[in-house]
Amino acid sequence: MEELSNVGSRPRVVIVGAGFGGLACAKALADTEVDVTVIDRRNHNLFQPLLYQVATAALSPADISEPIRRTLGRSDNIHVLMGEVVSIDPTARTVSLADGAAIPYDRLVLATGSKYNYFGNEDWQKHAPGLKSIHEARQIRHRLLLAFEQAERSQDEAEQRRLLTSVVIGGGPTGVEMAGAISELGRFMIERDFRSLRPEQHHVVLVEAGPRILATFPENLSDYAADYLRNIGVDIRLNTPVEDVTAEGVQVKDRFLPASCIVWGAGVKASPAADWLGISPGPGGRLPVARDLSVDGLEGVYAIGDTALALDEDGEALPALAQVAKQQGTFLGKALKASLLKGAAVPNFRFHNRGNTAVIGRNAAIFDFGTWQLKGRFAWLLWAIVHVYLLVNFEKRLLVSVQWIWRYTTRQRGARLIDENFIAPDK
Amino acid sequence: MEELSNVGSRPRVVIVGAGFGGLACAKALADTEVDVTVIDRRNHNLFQPLLYQVATAALSPADISEPIRRTLGRSDNIHVLMGEVVSIDPTARTVSLADGAAIPYDRLVLATGSKYNYFGNEDWQKHAPGLKSIHEARQIRHRLLLAFEQAERSQDEAEQRRLLTSVVIGGGPTGVEMAGAISELGRFMIERDFRSLRPEQHHVVLVEAGPRILATFPENLSDYAADYLRNIGVDIRLNTPVEDVTAEGVQVKDRFLPASCIVWGAGVKASPAADWLGISPGPGGRLPVARDLSVDGLEGVYAIGDTALALDEDGEALPALAQVAKQQGTFLGKALKASLLKGAAVPNFRFHNRGNTAVIGRNAAIFDFGTWQLKGRFAWLLWAIVHVYLLVNFEKRLLVSVQWIWRYTTRQRGARLIDENFIAPDK
Repeated sequence: MEELSNVGSRPRVVIVGAGFGGLACAKALADTEVDVTVIDRRNHNLFQPLLYQVATAALSPADISEPIRRTLGRSDNIHVLMGEVVSIDPTARTVSLADGAAIPYDRLVLATGSKYNYFGNEDWQKHAPGLKSIHEARQIRHRLLLAFEQAERSQDEAEQRRLLTSVVIGGGPTGVEMAGAISELGRFMIERDFRSLRPEQHHVVLVEAGPRILATFPENLSDYAADYLRNIGVDIRLNTPVEDVTAEGVQVKDRFLPASCIVWGAGVKASPAADWLGISPGPGGRLPVARDLSVDGLEGVYAIGDTALALDEDGEALPALAQVAKQQGTFLGKALKASLLKGAAVPNFRFHNRGNTAVIGRNAAIFDFGTWQLKGRFAWLLWAIVHVYLLVNFEKRLLVSVQWIWRYTTRQRGARLIDENFIAPDK
Repeated sequence: MEELSNVGSRPRVVIVGAGFGGLACAKALADTEVDVTVIDRRNHNLFQPLLYQVATAALSPADISEPIRRTLGRSDNIHVLMGEVVSIDPTARTVSLADGAAIPYDRLVLATGSKYNYFGNEDWQKHAPGLKSIHEARQIRHRLLLAFEQAERSQDEAEQRRLLTSVVIGGGPTGVEMAGAISELGRFMIERDFRSLRPEQHHVVLVEAGPRILATFPENLSDYAADYLRNIGVDIRLNTPVEDVTAEGVQVKDRFLPASCIVWGAGVKASPAADWLGISPGPGGRLPVARDLSVDGLEGVYAIGDTALALDEDGEALPALAQVAKQQGTFLGKALKASLLKGAAVPNFRFHNRGNTAVIGRNAAIFDFGTWQLKGRFAWLLWAIVHVYLLVNFEKRLLVSVQWIWRYTTRQRGARLIDENFIAPDK
């Protein structure tokens, strides 16, 4: 173990990013003799697995987020900074922020997550937002709801068809969740609240470049999900790579799909931690790490979650999942504590698969536990219980439960707000 | 009664604005033989009395708003249009929308509410938003919360003082509510979540041009409110007209008050209904109406709520209050139904004062029922019950109640989100 730079005082751990990984790491270091600084661009953490429900008007942003200060506020050894990292100096061991501050560290944990990958077509982003932030979720909600209002008044048949069509790009869990939720929202709203429209006029197209949706799940679960989605009116187009995205719709192979709402869920890449370090990243922008989660060649620097390219015992890359980030965070927090306070070496990380899940619609979800699987209404109930449980604090759990029970009974959506600032940003 | 323009078909009532007045009017006309069209710029109505709680991170926007389609969706004779009115032709009896559509009417009800009056200094608005829309409430919340994050990191004493100061302009009910809520929020957040700050560093200044706050209430209630506010740390400056508002603070008389968050609550003016009609409005931009709420000299045109300058039996102008708008809406809806379907004349409107209330802080509110008054903890409880009851539907009532009970017990704030789109609007 190399010497600490601030001999005599408490060792300093800086964690960049307060997502699942960063928070778990900070919590494992809470109330220890280690000085912990958590840096995030936002003042709040976000329960991303339920962000699609904000985008489809079922929950409010505050229902799935919490100030980082509140989550970590009870521990005197943890400091929370809202700031934007611009570079890291691994020799001087400092993290530089946009406002010029330099934060020194003895150990640095990079847990900055991922963002959507447009594979070089970054101009598509404004037409096809992904689902990583509250701003994007609001943007999608706004486009969806506004299109219905416009369609209700449109006299032009082709324009009305475009307004009532959503295209979801990417058949992974996010794409499937969004396609199912948009389809259910649209049909229900039309039935209930719109006089000039018929439910069957609403179209959701799910575009997937590969041969099946939910490719990381076993084939029987993919098939179940595809059947369910087709049943609630989703038009699934497999083997269909996207060629262009415009304000008017999506170009695939030989045809153009006019659409008012386009959602991007076609793959992620790591946030620019590699750029900060001035090293070249691995596939998907991820930082290759050793089995102990340390970044190769940089002493005292670790990466976890979507930022890290970590391999398991068999040399397979661990997937970019919340449970991986969380387990790595807890593991690393405990290991750093033992290392900094007792001189123990950081052991190798082992991932314990808790099962993989995706929700498809009202009453339908899938679980893959490796040796066994679950699908249908019971899987949905389990999904709902697990997600309420994972929500950070008691008030949110209660609020989200009340809203779900209410919505399940009435099929109403509680957050059907068209944001004024998207309509008239200068007012 | 003049002839209807569409003899033989059902009479048409167009209501512009879906606030308290417009909604009450539409509800009174629900399920009748009258065709009702409700036009609003927004897709949702807003429970404005609780908007200050969105601005101070206690509630989410969706908690206090509901899609107009849902509120009115059950009645087949009511059509909801999201659109912006640009002009009215009282001769042709049509309402023109920004997209070129012309909506014909037999009776027109103008219920477009009011906006904040900057008395010719419209450039102050961007520094000192009022509290009329969700966008403004989010803007205030964002400025408040961001200032605490910046203050936590600031090394500059004067700048830190500016960051920790809010100025509320106007000592009416909105100003008092905001000053009390900001003061409580700031002290509690600092105590709980910020390491480098002390609660007594937080400053709230309430600036009032007149000799006392809450001037429309009896003097003993004003005094009670002022004492309570001073007690929770609000610095009240009476007889202090504002001379300038900048991004850095507020200029009053001989001194400049540096502040990070400035809130405008110093008077309202009616929205531009008079412009649409091409007539000159009365004081505060309001349309003078006869005792039957009809606009002088324009057949078939009525105005209610903040839009109207209506006089009571004694020739006094009715105040711009939600209860006035609501009573006028219900009255006019019923009267138009009798007029259009049975040929009855529209009678004179009489206002029934249900009591006037303002909330000052946790455990403190005032009620003025004319002959008797109420203040303190019991008034606050009554205020809370009344406001939960007035929230439109059951789900919202339940959600808001749960949050209030939780907050009352823990003093936590549930919606402490700093909006990313204010930070990085282009992302």
